[in-house]
Amino acid sequence: MRKIYEQDVEDIATGASFMGAGGGGDPYVGKLMAKSAIKRGNPVSLINVDELDPEAIYAPVACMGAPSVMTEKFPKGDEFQRVLQAVADQQHKKIGGIFPIEAGGVNSMIPFVLGAQTGIPVVDVDSMGRAFPELQMTTLHLAGVTVPPMAITDEKGNMGLLDTVTDKWAELLARDMTVEMGATAVVSLYSTTGEKLQEAGIAGILTKCQQVGQIVRQHSKGHDWQLQQLHEITNSLHLFDGKVVDVSQTTSGGFNHGQITIDGLNSFSGKTMTIDYQNENLVAHVDGQLAVSVPDLICLADIDSLTPFTAEDVRYGKRMAVFGLPCDEKWRTPAGIETVGPRYFGYDYDYQPVEELAKERG
Amino acid sequence: MRKIYEQDVEDIATGASFMGAGGGGDPYVGKLMAKSAIKRGNPVSLINVDELDPEAIYAPVACMGAPSVMTEKFPKGDEFQRVLQAVADQQHKKIGGIFPIEAGGVNSMIPFVLGAQTGIPVVDVDSMGRAFPELQMTTLHLAGVTVPPMAITDEKGNMGLLDTVTDKWAELLARDMTVEMGATAVVSLYSTTGEKLQEAGIAGILTKCQQVGQIVRQHSKGHDWQLQQLHEITNSLHLFDGKVVDVSQTTSGGFNHGQITIDGLNSFSGKTMTIDYQNENLVAHVDGQLAVSVPDLICLADIDSLTPFTAEDVRYGKRMAVFGLPCDEKWRTPAGIETVGPRYFGYDYDYQPVEELAKERG
Repeated sequence: MRKIYEQDVEDIATGASFMGAGGGGDPYVGKLMAKSAIKRGNPVSLINVDELDPEAIYAPVACMGAPSVMTEKFPKGDEFQRVLQAVADQQHKKIGGIFPIEAGGVNSMIPFVLGAQTGIPVVDVDSMGRAFPELQMTTLHLAGVTVPPMAITDEKGNMGLLDTVTDKWAELLARDMTVEMGATAVVSLYSTTGEKLQEAGIAGILTKCQQVGQIVRQHSKGHDWQLQQLHEITNSLHLFDGKVVDVSQTTSGGFNHGQITIDGLNSFSGKTMTIDYQNENLVAHVDGQLAVSVPDLICLADIDSLTPFTAEDVRYGKRMAVFGLPCDEKWRTPAGIETVGPRYFGYDYDYQPVEELAKERG
Repeated sequence: MRKIYEQDVEDIATGASFMGAGGGGDPYVGKLMAKSAIKRGNPVSLINVDELDPEAIYAPVACMGAPSVMTEKFPKGDEFQRVLQAVADQQHKKIGGIFPIEAGGVNSMIPFVLGAQTGIPVVDVDSMGRAFPELQMTTLHLAGVTVPPMAITDEKGNMGLLDTVTDKWAELLARDMTVEMGATAVVSLYSTTGEKLQEAGIAGILTKCQQVGQIVRQHSKGHDWQLQQLHEITNSLHLFDGKVVDVSQTTSGGFNHGQITIDGLNSFSGKTMTIDYQNENLVAHVDGQLAVSVPDLICLADIDSLTPFTAEDVRYGKRMAVFGLPCDEKWRTPAGIETVGPRYFGYDYDYQPVEELAKERG
């Protein structure tokens, strides 16, 4: 257990934005929310998965919807407690802690906001080890923890409880409600025991995000040892450097969809990378050849400052470094690939690990 | 209190289909469901609003969605009990009875199905005195009874509970869920006390529907005294006789929308009527002049047999009689007109009672 202060959430949000693989919301918004809550409330306790109460339940609280809208339509603040309470009421159990559903600029911060509001500890775990766009895309789902009982609410005070026959049905119904609520909503779901969370979650993700955030904060232009540090923490492969020459984005069905085209710089000069995304980056090709695909991470950062970019930050002329990160081993299973592999997102090719694709290119 | 048998539900469904003003679902489907439930279960008790238990709550159970889809996608049968139980659980009160949310071929029958399944009595009341397309369009809403706590379910077993800040928000969120569930769903909502139901409901609607159904069953071509009987029960004005020459229909957003064009026959020869509908008939014009608009009823029947037509039954060549019925006085209030008048549905003119419009035409 350790206490979390403003500098900590600042670094965690930055690192989570990197690990969010282009999604998970704007870290600037996430930082503002968490720092303001900690200033007004209490410093928050961060506990490890080996410190969990076997009698209690643990649940994520998260924003759902299009990240581009989240930047303009903040939660009001009382949504987090409302959905958590609703989920706890359904279970008739005490809440032992909260955790982020995913690494991401906003969704890594919500448990800290709620922790500062309520004193409930935050657990150093998430259910993706990155960010993904849909509710059933979690390692908890793979381990048989279900989305329901799920609560969904908005800043106006509308509230829904969902009990669905599959996690995908929860995604479909909650996505429609999210769109109606104004393209973002607040949800709690996947409540589970400490034992199950320890087995099925991605432990230590917040500490890893904080380490990445510290590297970014300390980064000075041209210091290769910092890229080396990033590699040591995340196993990142430096896939591309380039300048953004085209971006397309649409917001529909409660998601941001789009494509980014990058012309190569430095040792990548003369090559072109394209990245497709649905909230998060899905696949990247260099000159038409697959370089990395879901569930591996495609992470974007400013070429000089290493500041991470979410997909909706990307603008014409931005100079970016693109990193490929191997996903957690839990995703590299048949069930994992079926849930979040390239075919799920409509691509007609199989998943290949990013490090193998890199070897093939030589 | 009286017992309801197969012939009763047959007549009620026919009459409710007439009073459904073009909506409320296919009476053939409704009759099948109710007759089969009564055959397998028990005859159902129909009670009056002066026989209600002051300690109990009363709630409608209904199908929501596009009537055209309801004809092909039947409820499985266990949905009705599921939503009613969910609503009762939220209230911690005993259920004294169920009632139709509206007059309509399907929605007048669901309480009888549920009554046969459970023994819960059906109350001779509804919340519209006709059918309307949206959830907030009830006399209960006008009287301050709220849609939430609301339950919504589908034949697969997905279940949602809604607690919304307004009835219109319940309509918006439940409509999205209905579309996702396959364009129809089963709902329970507007649970209320016997006292409030007596004050705010449309009492006697099922008996009125049964009387209309009996007239239709006994109708023989050319018997004017039966039109006279219909008039005595419903205050119907015989607005038009004609042959359908054009029908447009789209199913979108969980509704059927369309327009019907009818060329005049008999004394209406040389004139043309157009009827716009959204599940239910909304406005009818003769040669461009308004003849009747919501909340007054526009009811369609076969010119020879008086068999009622729902809007989605209407086909090229059908020979129809069109009746205008004054709506219940509860709708002819400023709040009623605001909720279901022509301006709510996007028309840029004020409501005028159908009998006044008829007088103006002379």
